[in-house]
Amino acid sequence: MGTVVWWLVMVVVVAVHSASAAVIEEKWEVEYTFWWPDCKEGIVMAINGQFPGPTINAVAGDRVIIHVTNKLSTEGVVIHWHGIHQIGTPWADGAAGVTQCAINPGETFTYNFTVDKAGTHFYHGHYGMQRSAGLYGMLIVRSPKETLRYDGEFNLLLTDWWHQSIHSQELALSSRPMRWIGEPQSLLINGRGQHNCSQAAYFTKGGMTQCTFKQNDQCAPQTLRVQPNKVYRLRIASSTALATLNLAVEGHKLEVVEADGNYVAPFTVSDIDIYSGETYSVLLKTHSTPSKNHWISVGVRGRKPNTPQALTLLNYINTPNSNNPTKPPPVTPRWDDYDRSKTFSKKILAAKGYYPPPPEKSHDQLILLNTQNLINNYTKWAINNVSLSVPATPYLGSIKYGLKSAYDLKSPGKTFTNDYDIMKPPANPNTNKGSGIYNFPLGIVVDVILQNANVLKGRISEIHPWHLHGHDFWVLGYGEGKFRRGIDEKRFNLKNPPLRNTVVVYPYGWTALRFVTDNPGVWFFHCHIEPHLHMGMGVVFAEGVNRIEKMDIPDEALGCGLTRKWLMDRGRR
Amino acid sequence: MGTVVWWLVMVVVVAVHSASAAVIEEKWEVEYTFWWPDCKEGIVMAINGQFPGPTINAVAGDRVIIHVTNKLSTEGVVIHWHGIHQIGTPWADGAAGVTQCAINPGETFTYNFTVDKAGTHFYHGHYGMQRSAGLYGMLIVRSPKETLRYDGEFNLLLTDWWHQSIHSQELALSSRPMRWIGEPQSLLINGRGQHNCSQAAYFTKGGMTQCTFKQNDQCAPQTLRVQPNKVYRLRIASSTALATLNLAVEGHKLEVVEADGNYVAPFTVSDIDIYSGETYSVLLKTHSTPSKNHWISVGVRGRKPNTPQALTLLNYINTPNSNNPTKPPPVTPRWDDYDRSKTFSKKILAAKGYYPPPPEKSHDQLILLNTQNLINNYTKWAINNVSLSVPATPYLGSIKYGLKSAYDLKSPGKTFTNDYDIMKPPANPNTNKGSGIYNFPLGIVVDVILQNANVLKGRISEIHPWHLHGHDFWVLGYGEGKFRRGIDEKRFNLKNPPLRNTVVVYPYGWTALRFVTDNPGVWFFHCHIEPHLHMGMGVVFAEGVNRIEKMDIPDEALGCGLTRKWLMDRGRR
Repeated sequence: MGTVVWWLVMVVVVAVHSASAAVIEEKWEVEYTFWWPDCKEGIVMAINGQFPGPTINAVAGDRVIIHVTNKLSTEGVVIHWHGIHQIGTPWADGAAGVTQCAINPGETFTYNFTVDKAGTHFYHGHYGMQRSAGLYGMLIVRSPKETLRYDGEFNLLLTDWWHQSIHSQELALSSRPMRWIGEPQSLLINGRGQHNCSQAAYFTKGGMTQCTFKQNDQCAPQTLRVQPNKVYRLRIASSTALATLNLAVEGHKLEVVEADGNYVAPFTVSDIDIYSGETYSVLLKTHSTPSKNHWISVGVRGRKPNTPQALTLLNYINTPNSNNPTKPPPVTPRWDDYDRSKTFSKKILAAKGYYPPPPEKSHDQLILLNTQNLINNYTKWAINNVSLSVPATPYLGSIKYGLKSAYDLKSPGKTFTNDYDIMKPPANPNTNKGSGIYNFPLGIVVDVILQNANVLKGRISEIHPWHLHGHDFWVLGYGEGKFRRGIDEKRFNLKNPPLRNTVVVYPYGWTALRFVTDNPGVWFFHCHIEPHLHMGMGVVFAEGVNRIEKMDIPDEALGCGLTRKWLMDRGRR
Repeated sequence: MGTVVWWLVMVVVVAVHSASAAVIEEKWEVEYTFWWPDCKEGIVMAINGQFPGPTINAVAGDRVIIHVTNKLSTEGVVIHWHGIHQIGTPWADGAAGVTQCAINPGETFTYNFTVDKAGTHFYHGHYGMQRSAGLYGMLIVRSPKETLRYDGEFNLLLTDWWHQSIHSQELALSSRPMRWIGEPQSLLINGRGQHNCSQAAYFTKGGMTQCTFKQNDQCAPQTLRVQPNKVYRLRIASSTALATLNLAVEGHKLEVVEADGNYVAPFTVSDIDIYSGETYSVLLKTHSTPSKNHWISVGVRGRKPNTPQALTLLNYINTPNSNNPTKPPPVTPRWDDYDRSKTFSKKILAAKGYYPPPPEKSHDQLILLNTQNLINNYTKWAINNVSLSVPATPYLGSIKYGLKSAYDLKSPGKTFTNDYDIMKPPANPNTNKGSGIYNFPLGIVVDVILQNANVLKGRISEIHPWHLHGHDFWVLGYGEGKFRRGIDEKRFNLKNPPLRNTVVVYPYGWTALRFVTDNPGVWFFHCHIEPHLHMGMGVVFAEGVNRIEKMDIPDEALGCGLTRKWLMDRGRR
């Protein structure tokens, strides 16, 4: 239990630091606006008229206070601060139905939390599929004592974009039969992509039109203007709804130094894979005698791509921005070369000297089988045969006030039946809807094995990047086929596993992670693919229920469903 | 004050009747669904999977209990019972922000009200532009002692339909510069229209394709199957978002007998105009020796039309449904023949012997000038220089609990400046947003003069059908130009003015109406054109504030904004 003690120490350190910390306070208004994210007009969810939303620049220990006013006509809204642990403020995590009620149109809700540790993070909508409507932005938390050395930095927020509205997408996915939304029309870098033209068309024979941009075009790429012989930190985050991405910079190597806000043992690659929900920092050393511009390319991996690469320029200051690169954009590695992907994933290991190793033993183990299923012929995703239906009353409030009818009190299974054949479509395609959660006492070590399987039809197993709220976890290992309980644990990396908040489970494989229940609250753990989550692919962890019962939670977070009723009736009791 | 007494008597009679009345109780689920309203796929707001929503068939005095569950992903919802007075139950009126909070996704709200008097009514969404998304249905209240004689009846719910989503429409209207949504793509009769074909194409040379329908086509017209030599009551309601309609039945006269749930002195016409928010009953006498089918046509008036007629068949039982009529559909009268429209409006007078005349004098008078304006270059509609911005906290709750910061306490002006030239664009195009309301004591007689004017640009004055919640009013007269206070009152019809809940104000003209403040509550009074209301064209009447303060209002109606906070804090006080 040495690690648990260490974690508690860290919490104390943060608390001390924050006594002298800054307060970052902003007023945000969320509303739809017409925008041209990919040189075609669409409708985005903007913050204060900006798309993507404003970047938050904080220092570890700072207090962030964001007053979010919902200026939408009829829709609720929330903002999730992806990568922030919300220690002591689980109600500020921004997961609708889990930690708070959606903010009603015309109302303002104040998020007030400490950014507990440094890292490259982002924020995004977490209600319906509002993230996919463009409700996202960067959240950079700097370290007061940064150990990385670099001369400048850039943020690259990567997303995917559809021309179909999210309302239509949500309905399509919820229809019987389900209508798949298809691959994105465009990839966006900092909210900018090109659908009807290519910046690199001059390299291709026929087909695409060469882009020409007018000043202030909302789809014109932001070039990365660099000086020679310097080191730049690229802070890269993926808030895609669906796509797994690969990023490369032509003629330059990338040194991976940070993943999900944690330092990793540096390694150098020609390109990185990035799954939805992940962030990376890479260091890029510029050439000493540059004479031209270079392409930065972002392409699709992990699914058969049907979306053009997103491009922008690495622009050396002595070269005009308008000079076309003389070499074509990097070719994105083959989408289904999973061995290549796994090789990259397995390179990511904890940096030495920063983090203690994980606890050697776990106290509890969940083996979560993800399956694609049917409920009454509606297509769903299920975990251990339960497709999550998030209740109208946020769990955090139901638990605090002991409202036992707000959700299914029976927990979903801790594992799945031994005879399930993950290599085949489910023998019984039908599953069940549920709102049950997993309950953990404080201070224990939990292992979660994500187990992938074949989808409903055909011989396909999809990629799922799983994101845990309120925590980092150690990624103990990846494996092929079905997890062998009692055997595969022996291969866990307990020496230098990376700390992350998002991890992928590969087709027909498993991924093992470990975390310590040191953060009282209710934490969503779900596939970060927006349509998969919409179809039920998530679970919920309640941690330290007795602590939640004593916790101060603003009434405004619980003004819906049964908690609203409970709080209103309080006056009559 | 004789009339006031009569009204109070009527309330008592209803109360007595309801002691023996039936209860109509239904569970409704509201959700989006793909549908083919006009032979082209779109997305509609359905109730229990039906579009339009289910018809409610009640008898005057019945109690109607509808449990509405919001199955939308992120949007709130309410239902307004158009034409029902909600005596004693103003919280059940279903006007979001006025009488209740929108129902949150996943939650259920119970409307529980008495249908106080017989009439042809309908219900519809009253949040954002959800009515335009197809959230509507018929609400028929029969009289236990019907005096009209007829052999059968049909409901015709008339609406207009756009291919652009309401979310996109709302944004377009709220954009700077405003983007007008244009004329509807289709007109629908009971939710059915034809966009890509015409049933009567065989009458026209070239152009349109003749429709052929497959069984169960959602856009196939419902024919009105009739027997010879009988009298049928057509109950017609218009829930259009924009269009003024004209309905005619080829080869048949229509005897108008009811308007907005009130009997009118019968008169016979070849066609009727119907404005959004209005209902009519007409009696149609079938031919004695029929040998063919006849077209029922619905076309656009009052705005330059760009939408094909909606058609369905009057089908005599001895004639196959598939026989095409031998005469073409009736031609809709010229859209801008306002003299014809006014002639029709002025024919509508109260039936003798049913209703007392209005009180001879009024105690208060509002002259409401409607103007199209700009606020910070956003296009708005304003009344007496205030563009209504409905607050996040419902007025009904703010008033009950005395929450004075929930809305502007200053009432908007009771009239407009004398020198305003209604024949020209506003000299100062700018106006102000506001949430102030008009307060009336109980038991007084109020006159409202709706004053039309020129729009922002050009020489145009638009039609506005105004609908009052919670009341019928007497239509005392229509006039041209600017209302002359002290003069035009002398021309008011105090003998047999019709009782209505919706009335039109013609271009460059005025309309006078009178009502008695006999219904404690907060009542929306607004232009029933959905985009106009969205742009601020409405006012709010609070009636009997001291009675509202003592009224029982379910907490569930007030679970948003400052009333939620008030009700939650009650427990701490």
